Amino acid sequence: MSSKNTIGALILAAGKGTRMHSDKPKVLQPLLGEPMLRYVYTALDPIFGDGIWTVIGHGADMVSRTFEMESRNFVLQSEQLGTGHALQVAWPELIRSGLNRVLVVNGDTPLLPQPRIMAFMKEVVDRDADIGFMTLTLADPASFGRVVRHNGEVAAIVEAKDFDENMHGQEPNEINAGIYLLKIDSISPLLEKLQNTNKSGEYYITDLVELAVARRMKVCGVDCGQDPHLLGINNPAELVRSESLLRTNLVLEWLEQGVMIHAPETVRIGPMVYLEPGAVLHGPCELYGNTEVRTGATVQSHTWLRNAIVSSGAEVRPFCHIEDAEIGPDCIVGPYARLRPGAVLEEGSRVGNFVEMKKSVLGKKSKANHFTYLGDTEVGVGANIGAGTITCNYDGVNKHKTVIGDGAFIGSNSALVAPVTIGANSLVGAGSVITKDVPDDTLAIARGVQKNLPRKRKS
Amino acid sequence: MSSKNTIGALILAAGKGTRMHSDKPKVLQPLLGEPMLRYVYTALDPIFGDGIWTVIGHGADMVSRTFEMESRNFVLQSEQLGTGHALQVAWPELIRSGLNRVLVVNGDTPLLPQPRIMAFMKEVVDRDADIGFMTLTLADPASFGRVVRHNGEVAAIVEAKDFDENMHGQEPNEINAGIYLLKIDSISPLLEKLQNTNKSGEYYITDLVELAVARRMKVCGVDCGQDPHLLGINNPAELVRSESLLRTNLVLEWLEQGVMIHAPETVRIGPMVYLEPGAVLHGPCELYGNTEVRTGATVQSHTWLRNAIVSSGAEVRPFCHIEDAEIGPDCIVGPYARLRPGAVLEEGSRVGNFVEMKKSVLGKKSKANHFTYLGDTEVGVGANIGAGTITCNYDGVNKHKTVIGDGAFIGSNSALVAPVTIGANSLVGAGSVITKDVPDDTLAIARGVQKNLPRKRKS
Amino acid sequence: MSSKNTIGALILAAGKGTRMHSDKPKVLQPLLGEPMLRYVYTALDPIFGDGIWTVIGHGADMVSRTFEMESRNFVLQSEQLGTGHALQVAWPELIRSGLNRVLVVNGDTPLLPQPRIMAFMKEVVDRDADIGFMTLTLADPASFGRVVRHNGEVAAIVEAKDFDENMHGQEPNEINAGIYLLKIDSISPLLEKLQNTNKSGEYYITDLVELAVARRMKVCGVDCGQDPHLLGINNPAELVRSESLLRTNLVLEWLEQGVMIHAPETVRIGPMVYLEPGAVLHGPCELYGNTEVRTGATVQSHTWLRNAIVSSGAEVRPFCHIEDAEIGPDCIVGPYARLRPGAVLEEGSRVGNFVEMKKSVLGKKSKANHFTYLGDTEVGVGANIGAGTITCNYDGVNKHKTVIGDGAFIGSNSALVAPVTIGANSLVGAGSVITKDVPDDTLAIARGVQKNLPRKRKS
Repeated sequence: MSSKNTIGALILAAGKGTRMHSDKPKVLQPLLGEPMLRYVYTALDPIFGDGIWTVIGHGADMVSRTFEMESRNFVLQSEQLGTGHALQVAWPELIRSGLNRVLVVNGDTPLLPQPRIMAFMKEVVDRDADIGFMTLTLADPASFGRVVRHNGEVAAIVEAKDFDENMHGQEPNEINAGIYLLKIDSISPLLEKLQNTNKSGEYYITDLVELAVARRMKVCGVDCGQDPHLLGINNPAELVRSESLLRTNLVLEWLEQGVMIHAPETVRIGPMVYLEPGAVLHGPCELYGNTEVRTGATVQSHTWLRNAIVSSGAEVRPFCHIEDAEIGPDCIVGPYARLRPGAVLEEGSRVGNFVEMKKSVLGKKSKANHFTYLGDTEVGVGANIGAGTITCNYDGVNKHKTVIGDGAFIGSNSALVAPVTIGANSLVGAGSVITKDVPDDTLAIARGVQKNLPRKRKS
Repeated sequence: MSSKNTIGALILAAGKGTRMHSDKPKVLQPLLGEPMLRYVYTALDPIFGDGIWTVIGHGADMVSRTFEMESRNFVLQSEQLGTGHALQVAWPELIRSGLNRVLVVNGDTPLLPQPRIMAFMKEVVDRDADIGFMTLTLADPASFGRVVRHNGEVAAIVEAKDFDENMHGQEPNEINAGIYLLKIDSISPLLEKLQNTNKSGEYYITDLVELAVARRMKVCGVDCGQDPHLLGINNPAELVRSESLLRTNLVLEWLEQGVMIHAPETVRIGPMVYLEPGAVLHGPCELYGNTEVRTGATVQSHTWLRNAIVSSGAEVRPFCHIEDAEIGPDCIVGPYARLRPGAVLEEGSRVGNFVEMKKSVLGKKSKANHFTYLGDTEVGVGANIGAGTITCNYDGVNKHKTVIGDGAFIGSNSALVAPVTIGANSLVGAGSVITKDVPDDTLAIARGVQKNLPRKRKS
Repeated sequence: MSSKNTIGALILAAGKGTRMHSDKPKVLQPLLGEPMLRYVYTALDPIFGDGIWTVIGHGADMVSRTFEMESRNFVLQSEQLGTGHALQVAWPELIRSGLNRVLVVNGDTPLLPQPRIMAFMKEVVDRDADIGFMTLTLADPASFGRVVRHNGEVAAIVEAKDFDENMHGQEPNEINAGIYLLKIDSISPLLEKLQNTNKSGEYYITDLVELAVARRMKVCGVDCGQDPHLLGINNPAELVRSESLLRTNLVLEWLEQGVMIHAPETVRIGPMVYLEPGAVLHGPCELYGNTEVRTGATVQSHTWLRNAIVSSGAEVRPFCHIEDAEIGPDCIVGPYARLRPGAVLEEGSRVGNFVEMKKSVLGKKSKANHFTYLGDTEVGVGANIGAGTITCNYDGVNKHKTVIGDGAFIGSNSALVAPVTIGANSLVGAGSVITKDVPDDTLAIARGVQKNLPRKRKS
C-alpha cells in the first residue's frame, strides 16, 4: 500500500468493447503498442502503489495473462451486469483492505492525466464529500449522462435522452466523465439499493448520486472543463484520436529533451521507450516497447523497433525490423536487417542487407554484411561471414547450435549444418556445405569440381 | 439503359492535359491508384447505367484499353477542336439513342459527388430549362469563365479577362463549373451555330449559353456554393490536392465503419478496396486496387498491397509488397515478403523474411521462412522450405514447374531445377542442386564432400 | 570577388551548439540531409562569390573537411570568446581584402532568404549607416536581445533580462536578429573597445551598437517584421521546425513546376535535388544530395535515395535504398533493391528484389532479378543473373573483379569466386562454385551429383 493508504483505486476493466469488432477485450486494445490498461496503471501506480484493484470480466484470461508479471489485484466479474454491479463485486475486497475512500475509473481512459487525478481527489477530500465525480462541459455532449444541478449543487445524473432543458433550467452541456471518488462507509448502504429497472437491465454507478442526494449526503461534481484526456474510448475512431494526441505529446516531449527527431509528425514512440538527449531519429519510424536509443545513436527512416537497445554511436539504417535485440556501441545495422529475439551485436560489429539473426551473438568487429541467416549461433571476434551464408539450425524436429571462432572467414553461399563448430582463424570455401566440425586454422571445403563444356543453346 | 432512360451522360475525356507533362492522357492520371475517369464512371454508373458516352481523343487507345473489360460507349474525336466540337462529334450518337436530355461532364472531375449531380438534374428538369449548368462562387475565381446575370437570370458566360465588374454591375466571383444538362431538341439547332473565332480557334460549349439566351430559351445556372469537389484537375498540384481530399474522406469512412486504422494520416486506401469491421491497419501503408482485408486480419506498417486478399486472422508484417495474391486465414507473412501475381497462401501457412513467391501455392501449414524464391511451384501441406531455397524455374527460354509434396523438408541453400518433383515426406540435404525427381520418403543429396586442410593465410 | 566587390560577408560558424547534444559542431547539423552551413552558402554565394569568410572554431576540422571540395576562406577562432571576438579574429582578413562593408550572419540561420538580404543591404547602404542590423518583432521575444529606440532611432541593444519596459517606454517586442552590415572604417576603432565584463566573460557584437551610438555614428535597425526564416537554430526542436518549413516550401515548389508528388506531406526532398517536370514521386520517400529524377521516371513509395540519377522512363519500386548510383532509361529497380556507390544500370536493365549492387555495371537489357550480390562486377549486354548468384569479391584481404560477358546465363545459387571471367553466351549451371575462368559459349558446372536414398525420419 502506498503512503496515502486510506484511499485505493478501482479500475473497471470488464467490458467487451463490442464496437471494436475485436476478439480482444477493450482494455487490451493497444495505443502505440501498449494496451489501454497499461496507461491507466502508469497513471495510478505512483499514487496508489499496491492499492489498486481491477475488475475484469470479458476476456479475463487474456487480461490477467497480459499483466501476469506484475502483481495486480484482479477481481473477477463473471457476469457483466453493469458498472454498479462491478462495484458490488469488488466491494468486499475494498472493505477488507480497510480503505476510507476509493477512486473508481474506467479502464478505457488511457490518457487520464495524473495531476488531474491528484487535484480531483484533493478537492473531494477537502470538501469531505461522500461522492465526488469529474464533470466535463462539452460543446457536443452526445450521449453522455447529464449533470443536473440545483443552486449549483448536484441533484442527479440523468441519461441524455431524459434530460429536458426546460425542466432543468440549465444548459445540457455538463456531463459525467465517469470518474468517482467514493467514501466507503457512506456508499456501503447505498450499494445494495441499486436497481436494474432500466432498458439494459444493468446496475449503474451513476444511480448512486441520486441515492446519495436523497439521503442528503454530500455530493460534489468537480468541473474539469473540456479536457479531452478524460474521455473513454469506445470505437476505433476514438482510439485513434486518443492515440494521435498521445503520439504528438510524446514526440514533442522528447524533442524538448534534446532528442533530434526529423520528420517528427511521422514518428511513433511508445510510452515505455527511453531516449537519451543527442539520440537521432528519422521519420517515418516506430519505436515500441522498452526500446532505448542512446546519445549519439541514429535510427534512420523506415524502421520498426520493439524492445531494442541501440547503443551510443550505433546506426540503424533504413528498412530494419528489430525486436528484442541489443545493438552494441558503434555497430552499423542494415539497411534491410532483421534482428529477431535474442540477437546481440557486440561493439563495432556490422550486420548488412538482407540479414536475419535470431538467438545469436555477433562478436566485436565481426561482420555479416549480406544475405545471411544466423540462428542459434555464436560468432567470435573479428570474424567475416560471407554473403549467402546460412546456418542450418533446424533439422525438422530440433534446433541446434553453430559456433564460429575468432577471425574465421566463411566463404559465400556456404551452409553450416548445425550442430557444428568452425574453429578460430579457419576458412570455409565459398559454396561449401559444412557438416563436420572444422578445427582452428583450417581450410574447409565441400563442393563440386568445376568442369567447362561446350554449351548447346536451347532455341 | 437505366430507368431514367430519357437522360444520358456524356463525358469529355479527349484532352491531353499538357500541364501534367505525361505521356498518359489526362483522364488516366491516377488518384490513389485508379485513373481519374474511373471515379467519374463510379459516380455516373448507378444513375445512367448503359446511357453513358465518353468522348476520347488524345491517347484514345490507352483509354479504351484501360476500360476494355467494361462495355463503354466511346466516341472518337480525332481532332481536338474544343469542348463544343466534342459535343458536335458525339451528338449523332445521343440523337440515335432517343435521349431527351444529356448531362455533360468533364473527365477530369474525379470527385464529382453523386448527390450533387442528382440534385442538379432534378432542379434543371423541374424548371424545364433548355440549358442548365452548375456554378461556383469562389473567393479566387482565377481564370474560370464568369457567369453574367441580369436580374438574377443568366445572360452569358464570359471569359475571365473579358469580365468587367463595372459593366456587369456584379461581383466577378460566380464561375461556370463546366457541368451541363442540355435538352437535346433545344440544343440541336444551336450546335451548328458555334463559332471558333477566338484566340485558340476552338469551339466552346460555353457559347451555347449566349446563343440560347439570344433565342429566349430557358437557361438556368444552379449555384453550388464553393464545393471543391466540382473543380477539374489540370496540373499535378491540383491532382494532388484532390487526391488528398479523397484520401482523407475514404480513411475516415472506414474508421467510422469500425476498421482500426492506426496513424490514419499516413494510410492510403484506394476507392475499390474493401475492409471489414475489425480489420486492423497500421500506417504508413498503402492498399490499392481490389484489395480486401477481413475481420481480425492485420496489415502492419510500411506495406504496399494491390489486389491482395488478406483473410481473417492473417497478419501482414512490415515491409511487405503484395500484388494479385491471396493470403489465407491465420497466415503470417513477412516482414520483407514479396508476393507477386498468382501467389496463394493456404490456411495457416507462413512466408517469412526475404521470400519471393510468384504463381505458386503454399499448402496449409507449410513454411517458407527465409530467403526463398518459389516460382511456378506447388507446395503441399505441412512442408518446410529451408532458408535459401531457390526454384530454378527459368532456363533462359521457358518457365518450368516445381512440385513439392506434403511434409517434404527442403534443406537450406538448395536449388531445385525445374521441371522437378520432390515427393511427399522426402528430404533434400542442405546445399543440394536437385535436377532429377525425388520419390516419396526419400533423402536426396547432391553436394561435394567436405575436406579439412591446413589454412594458408594471405597477408 | 563578385561584382559588388566592396561588400563581403562573414559567417560566424565557430559555435559548439551544446544544446544539440552532438559531437558535430552546430553548423554541420543537417536539414534534409545537408549541413546548415550549406544553406547559408547557397544564399550568399550568388551575392558575394569569393567574398565570403567563415569563422570556424569548435569542430573546425570537421567543418573544413565537409567543404574541402570548395575553396572557402576559413578563419580559425581557436578560443571561442564570443561573437565580438570572432569579429576581431576575422577583421585583419577583411581589411586586407579592401572591403568597404561586411555582412555578418550566423551559420545557424539556414533559411536566410536571399531577397531579404539584398533588401536589407540596399537600405543600409542607401542610408549610409555605419552599423545596420535586422530586427524582428515577436509576440514572444523570449531571451533575444531587445532593441531600445529613442525617437525611433536605435539607442542600444540590451539583454532581455535588463530590459525595463517602464524605463524604456516601449514594448519589449523588437529584437535583434543578429544579422549586421558593418562599415569597415567606422567599426575598426570600435572593435578594440569591446569589453568582456559580463557574466559569460565573452565579447559581443551587440555592444558595437552602443559604442557607435555614443560616438554619434549612424546606426540603423531594419525592421523585418516576424519573418521566421531569420531565426537561428539552437536546439533539436528549433532545427526540426526550420526543417519542416523548408521541406514544405521545397515540395510545393516542385509540385508547381509540374512534378507529380503523391502524398506530398510525406516526401522529403533535399535542397540540391533536381526534378524534371513530369517526374513522378510517391510518398513516403526521401531524395537527398544531388539526386535527379527525369521526366517520365517514377520513384515509388518507401524509398530512400541519395545522389541517385533516375533516367527517363525508369521506375524505382518500393523499399529501394539507392546511394551514388545511376539508373539508365527504362530500367526497373526493386522492390527491395539496394544500389550502393558505383552501381550503374544501363538502358533497359532490371534489378529485382533483394539484390545488392556495388561498384558494378549491369549492361543493357541485362537482368539480376532476385537475391543477388554483384560487387566489383561488369555485366555485359543481355545477360541473365540467376536468383541467389553471389560474386565473391573479397578474399578477406583484397577485393577482386568479376566479368560476365554478353548474353551469359548464370544459374541460380551460383558463387563466382573473383577474379573470374564468364565468357559471352556461356552458361553456369545452378548451384555451381566457379573458381576458374569460363570461355565464351561454354557450359560450366561445379556441383555434386545427386543421390536419392531412403529417408530415415527423426522422431
